[in-house]
Amino acid sequence: MKVFEQLESDIRGYCRLYPTVFKSASNARQVDEAGKSYIDFFAGAGVLNFGHNNLLMKKAIIEFIEADGVAHSLDTYTTAKRDFLEAFHKTILQPRGMNHKMQFMGPTGTNAVETALKLARKVTGRRTVVAFTHGFHGMTLGALAATTNSYFRNAAGVPLEHVRHEPFGCNKPCQGCTLGCGVGAVDRLRSLYADSSSGLEPPAAFLVEPIQAEGGVNVASKEWLLAIQTLAHDLGALLIFDDIQAGCGRTGQYFSFDGMGLDPDIVTLAKGIGGFGTPLAMNLVKPEHDKHWSPGEHTGTFRGQGLSFVAGKVGLSYFDNDDLMNDVKRKGAQMQEHLEGLVETFGSGRFQVRGKGMMQALDLGDGALAKQVAANCFERGLLLGACGTGGKVIKMIPPLTIPDADLSEGLSLFTAALQDALEAA
Amino acid sequence: MKVFEQLESDIRGYCRLYPTVFKSASNARQVDEAGKSYIDFFAGAGVLNFGHNNLLMKKAIIEFIEADGVAHSLDTYTTAKRDFLEAFHKTILQPRGMNHKMQFMGPTGTNAVETALKLARKVTGRRTVVAFTHGFHGMTLGALAATTNSYFRNAAGVPLEHVRHEPFGCNKPCQGCTLGCGVGAVDRLRSLYADSSSGLEPPAAFLVEPIQAEGGVNVASKEWLLAIQTLAHDLGALLIFDDIQAGCGRTGQYFSFDGMGLDPDIVTLAKGIGGFGTPLAMNLVKPEHDKHWSPGEHTGTFRGQGLSFVAGKVGLSYFDNDDLMNDVKRKGAQMQEHLEGLVETFGSGRFQVRGKGMMQALDLGDGALAKQVAANCFERGLLLGACGTGGKVIKMIPPLTIPDADLSEGLSLFTAALQDALEAA
Amino acid sequence: MKVFEQLESDIRGYCRLYPTVFKSASNARQVDEAGKSYIDFFAGAGVLNFGHNNLLMKKAIIEFIEADGVAHSLDTYTTAKRDFLEAFHKTILQPRGMNHKMQFMGPTGTNAVETALKLARKVTGRRTVVAFTHGFHGMTLGALAATTNSYFRNAAGVPLEHVRHEPFGCNKPCQGCTLGCGVGAVDRLRSLYADSSSGLEPPAAFLVEPIQAEGGVNVASKEWLLAIQTLAHDLGALLIFDDIQAGCGRTGQYFSFDGMGLDPDIVTLAKGIGGFGTPLAMNLVKPEHDKHWSPGEHTGTFRGQGLSFVAGKVGLSYFDNDDLMNDVKRKGAQMQEHLEGLVETFGSGRFQVRGKGMMQALDLGDGALAKQVAANCFERGLLLGACGTGGKVIKMIPPLTIPDADLSEGLSLFTAALQDALEAA
Amino acid sequence: MKVFEQLESDIRGYCRLYPTVFKSASNARQVDEAGKSYIDFFAGAGVLNFGHNNLLMKKAIIEFIEADGVAHSLDTYTTAKRDFLEAFHKTILQPRGMNHKMQFMGPTGTNAVETALKLARKVTGRRTVVAFTHGFHGMTLGALAATTNSYFRNAAGVPLEHVRHEPFGCNKPCQGCTLGCGVGAVDRLRSLYADSSSGLEPPAAFLVEPIQAEGGVNVASKEWLLAIQTLAHDLGALLIFDDIQAGCGRTGQYFSFDGMGLDPDIVTLAKGIGGFGTPLAMNLVKPEHDKHWSPGEHTGTFRGQGLSFVAGKVGLSYFDNDDLMNDVKRKGAQMQEHLEGLVETFGSGRFQVRGKGMMQALDLGDGALAKQVAANCFERGLLLGACGTGGKVIKMIPPLTIPDADLSEGLSLFTAALQDALEAA
Repeated sequence: MKVFEQLESDIRGYCRLYPTVFKSASNARQVDEAGKSYIDFFAGAGVLNFGHNNLLMKKAIIEFIEADGVAHSLDTYTTAKRDFLEAFHKTILQPRGMNHKMQFMGPTGTNAVETALKLARKVTGRRTVVAFTHGFHGMTLGALAATTNSYFRNAAGVPLEHVRHEPFGCNKPCQGCTLGCGVGAVDRLRSLYADSSSGLEPPAAFLVEPIQAEGGVNVASKEWLLAIQTLAHDLGALLIFDDIQAGCGRTGQYFSFDGMGLDPDIVTLAKGIGGFGTPLAMNLVKPEHDKHWSPGEHTGTFRGQGLSFVAGKVGLSYFDNDDLMNDVKRKGAQMQEHLEGLVETFGSGRFQVRGKGMMQALDLGDGALAKQVAANCFERGLLLGACGTGGKVIKMIPPLTIPDADLSEGLSLFTAALQDALEAA
Repeated sequence: MKVFEQLESDIRGYCRLYPTVFKSASNARQVDEAGKSYIDFFAGAGVLNFGHNNLLMKKAIIEFIEADGVAHSLDTYTTAKRDFLEAFHKTILQPRGMNHKMQFMGPTGTNAVETALKLARKVTGRRTVVAFTHGFHGMTLGALAATTNSYFRNAAGVPLEHVRHEPFGCNKPCQGCTLGCGVGAVDRLRSLYADSSSGLEPPAAFLVEPIQAEGGVNVASKEWLLAIQTLAHDLGALLIFDDIQAGCGRTGQYFSFDGMGLDPDIVTLAKGIGGFGTPLAMNLVKPEHDKHWSPGEHTGTFRGQGLSFVAGKVGLSYFDNDDLMNDVKRKGAQMQEHLEGLVETFGSGRFQVRGKGMMQALDLGDGALAKQVAANCFERGLLLGACGTGGKVIKMIPPLTIPDADLSEGLSLFTAALQDALEAA
Repeated sequence: MKVFEQLESDIRGYCRLYPTVFKSASNARQVDEAGKSYIDFFAGAGVLNFGHNNLLMKKAIIEFIEADGVAHSLDTYTTAKRDFLEAFHKTILQPRGMNHKMQFMGPTGTNAVETALKLARKVTGRRTVVAFTHGFHGMTLGALAATTNSYFRNAAGVPLEHVRHEPFGCNKPCQGCTLGCGVGAVDRLRSLYADSSSGLEPPAAFLVEPIQAEGGVNVASKEWLLAIQTLAHDLGALLIFDDIQAGCGRTGQYFSFDGMGLDPDIVTLAKGIGGFGTPLAMNLVKPEHDKHWSPGEHTGTFRGQGLSFVAGKVGLSYFDNDDLMNDVKRKGAQMQEHLEGLVETFGSGRFQVRGKGMMQALDLGDGALAKQVAANCFERGLLLGACGTGGKVIKMIPPLTIPDADLSEGLSLFTAALQDALEAA
Repeated sequence: MKVFEQLESDIRGYCRLYPTVFKSASNARQVDEAGKSYIDFFAGAGVLNFGHNNLLMKKAIIEFIEADGVAHSLDTYTTAKRDFLEAFHKTILQPRGMNHKMQFMGPTGTNAVETALKLARKVTGRRTVVAFTHGFHGMTLGALAATTNSYFRNAAGVPLEHVRHEPFGCNKPCQGCTLGCGVGAVDRLRSLYADSSSGLEPPAAFLVEPIQAEGGVNVASKEWLLAIQTLAHDLGALLIFDDIQAGCGRTGQYFSFDGMGLDPDIVTLAKGIGGFGTPLAMNLVKPEHDKHWSPGEHTGTFRGQGLSFVAGKVGLSYFDNDDLMNDVKRKGAQMQEHLEGLVETFGSGRFQVRGKGMMQALDLGDGALAKQVAANCFERGLLLGACGTGGKVIKMIPPLTIPDADLSEGLSLFTAALQDALEAA
């Protein structure tokens, strides 16, 4: 590990939580160079929905490379990209009646968000975007302005402008929360926009994570999302869903917002969409907005990632039938029950379980405790991380393909790690 | 191609220049699905320095995947990353006496630039960055503020602030240029900064491409770069070199600024560093600046790209001896001579050759003509693109590993394409 | 009037409401050049608290001029300024236990607000100011950013930044108001500031009009003002009261916020403070904040207005005893009763009376109606104006010294004008 | 003086240079309460062109007050304002063939500048304004962004945006100046604007002081002004002349830019225009731009200043014939000769004389020396101030009406004060 300390930037972070050197990984297991195996409840921050080194993807990628497939293509046409587009259209868009265009940009979530905001501003001729408390949208200046965590914001070095933050509408408010979220907050916001002397300018867009992952696994209520959607439409603003961490099947359905009658103008996707862990980002954009783009107006070198298209297409094949999604619902329920049991045992009225599908979280209400729990987990062979304000929420996002045995063992390890931390406290 | 028109965003650009569907690629050749083979003088916008599907890289990547190497690791420690760090340190940094730390971020050039600017602002407590006319640094808002092309800037939708643009110091000014660049411009700028009533605020950084690729292949003079470096140091500002397109061996040496006595505080790298076309970006940061980072203060999901580390390490092995760089110098000279011959034949006093190593360009002074030439090239089986203000400059950046035969054939195709265009005009 | 149309800018406004040329004015009467006399319920937008050409002031000014007093002195010391400072200290500050320093700047309200914001940012090292819906603070860019009316904001030509607007806490909410103001809104805002992931940055100041005049004569509740004050203190932000229109005795006490246990860090004053209609602006600044200024750091040519000091001192003499303030309370009650009577007669549940002391308003809920009423008033010989969103509120701010007969006659004229407008509608 | 120290803000500035309490003033003399008489070479920062308590103005103002003239009228029509408009039109505009509309705003220079910038942005739909090194335009945020002195800028507390500063084109460059001003700088700027990849956005306006007063009495060359005018027109930008300190006869002609074939779109006036020292500000706006204003879109309480209209009209009467302007030329020449003599005697190659008409300055190249000289002057009974970067320039702007004896005596006092300071150094 000395090599990293000597040569790599001090900014490195997760390695401080997991102080070992990983050598290999397979499905929900990572192995360090000392041979210790870890169960992975983190999945590369939600990228590896189909597990590390998914066998089908490995095979497809190796075949592609051996056949000299076009690995890097900017935004020229390639067969790999066409296959991906067709699969996504057939598997995801068509069944939902979505006619969104697919746009590729620099293959990171923050690029996707920047691109979406840029288009919303272009379409509406307005500047201000409404984003929400506890939201996380990326680190480049345009996306960082929408991100809320002051630790990240304070590093910007310049004022972060053109975004107004409003309370997020959780379906299950935290204990003692007085932020005033919910549909009432949307009504108040509507009144402000209706008043030409409120000081608020008509917004270009509402940027919403239907489930805030980094922000503490806060699940928006259907009512609130619908109210925001109606307000956006009434104001002539675009509705942008950032489904970068919660999308791609994580919640037991492809989009985290499926089944609520929602109709976003733009959906930003990244993380899980490339399947294998190689980068990819893609926005879904309604054609009536997409046509406002001029060719090449927003570019990026790594827009055409052959390996990600190939593995991503394999990932889409998991949605050809309901098997995986049913599995996710079943395992998600198991995770939730387990956590609810822990609340009853250890922290009734103190801890809180939140989540949907296989993104489940235990809000410990205490960042120091959560940090200790995560460290204990690592010692015991379980990888997971904390999120939310002050890092007080333990988030569990194992690969959707995690074997039942690993899932159960991981939950047991967590119980023990929590117990240790509570006893030591 | 209909699939793309129906499903993909209207923003797609290069595909309009190359209206075909590519299926495979090898070294300096791309083949479309109709079986037509193209010589590649574009190399994925400068990413594929070692050719499409470089054989050594293919082998290394496939072995890595088969061994279940960690493909995606955020910023945890992995053996693949350690190997890359050590190789970069040994091959590139140590021989140059550079003690810069290596920082990974979202794996695109724009993320690298945003990260560098963020740090410069943090270190200095200042906001304003000096960037240069014709510079290109990326599309996210922080980097876009430094980018100059109004086509990109106008799409921002918000004011682009905190950057002051000054004339770039070419070593070979364009015909009739009256921008007032050169060392004299640096002296004038120094005087402005020396005057507390100039209206200019002390800058956080000078952001410079030693060779502006997208901006028209403008090569900075050594004198100008040294003058900027001295000014930056005198003002307590950081010197940031954006070597994203011109670095990684493109100019016949690893960094485009090697051998001039330059000592940048930060170097941004991306494109060619991952070797195979899978994304990677990395900043080199002097330790005295790097220590201003707090852990995880600037994050990004795709910071730990196993495949890029593996292929990138193979790429670094090309710098173990001088063979490739000597080759680049030889081929670059051939390209330059060929272009100079064209100037003599067709456009003395009208066209201009600019470049270094295997980034060579012919400034045709006319965007419509350049567009026609590029289209003719495509027809004849040669891929290349235009750059510079109004797209008036033909840029040639073939893989460094292009076979001599392909290089010669490509240059001949270009001659014919130019001749056709001039005759038609 | 042709002269004006030919020579003066099209931006002229009030003259369109009062299409005549005024020649002289005395106390609450203005006379046009045709000899028609008007009762003045507008008092120069709240400047002429002591009437046009107040006899005591006339005398004092003429004596001063005849004695070659220093009419214009920048911020050098003059006897006239000393007299004013001493009088203000003795009459206003000392009895209230206020140890605020007096600061002069460019003699307009907007300059006063800009100066206050500048200091609050300097003291706290923060940027963002919280201002309130329906607030009016001036037209220069710093103050305009806090002003809410979109008609004014849209003319800025640049983004108006660094201000966050929140609902104002009326003591008597408008019919059907759903802005969500009141103490509950302050609690919600407190929660947002308490959460380091809310996206809100700690504010430099809360900028509040205890009574919003231009915004529609909205009177803040004591509870809300106290809650804002507590929040400001808890956040380390400054509490700035903009008492430019409601101060100087207008409400039956010198400050509009007297008697509520409030303790603002800065109070901005202008309009009425110079007494005679010659410009003056002054901020009251707590010494612990004032010491953050360096000499001459914020300047302005017309800071030292001899005539305004002289007349302003006369104005202060009206506060040596309670006679005027008792009169204001009595007349204000008469105005309010009259308006309440009109509500009962013409618009129960439709119109609303709001105000304090001799700033009384009738909210007609309809800008077109209010415009017609004001036009009818002018025809009948009564000058008054509309305010509030869309100009739907008739505001009455006669000179505090208006004779009882003029006040009664003015109210009668108003009744008739309203009746006419309602009948015509 | 204790009263001021106890009660007035620490920001007070000029009083530190002139530590006494002034009681009366007449023409070019100020008398303190101890009876000491001072010759005034400062004229209230250029306001009192016609002397303190100008007899004709005193008479007119007193008559106006006694007749109950309308002292304060917002932007309603009054007879006093009409008289002023007609006089300005007849005396100033008509003889020059100017058809500019007259616009009144908050009566300070900074309000005038803010208003001009607002209109230029409105007319062009652009944001960025080009202003010039050493320029001074006011203290409110919009004008401060154009002001260059870092002492003022650093107090802003927010970033000052939307202005690009370029070198000012002096007719007589300072010793050793390397700012690169002059027509060459305009050519370079033109080239930058002509290049769509320069990073510069088309400007809304060029904001120029034909003579920079606060900036160090820098007189623009005719060639440079014409080049800027041509560039502005070619770019579709407005040309705004800030003639606030140098206008109103100061230079021996009404406008400082008279007689050069210049045709500004907007001229900002304040300071001297109200004549007596009571505030007034006025913009002259070409009708084709003025028509972009909507009624009342930019307001301000103190727009209609009766006393300033009355005195200002008296001031205009001085331009009915050439007597005063001939006098100004004669006295200005005397001042200049005197200063040139001092340069020869004391500082050839070290000091520099600059100025036009009765704005003359001695650049001592040393702020500490200039401060000592000004202090010595005060001791000897002469009031003047320093300007320019670091306060190194002594500026002399006596009332235009100063008696010859006072002028000569003042110049002698200055010689002695300079000699003392040089001997002490």
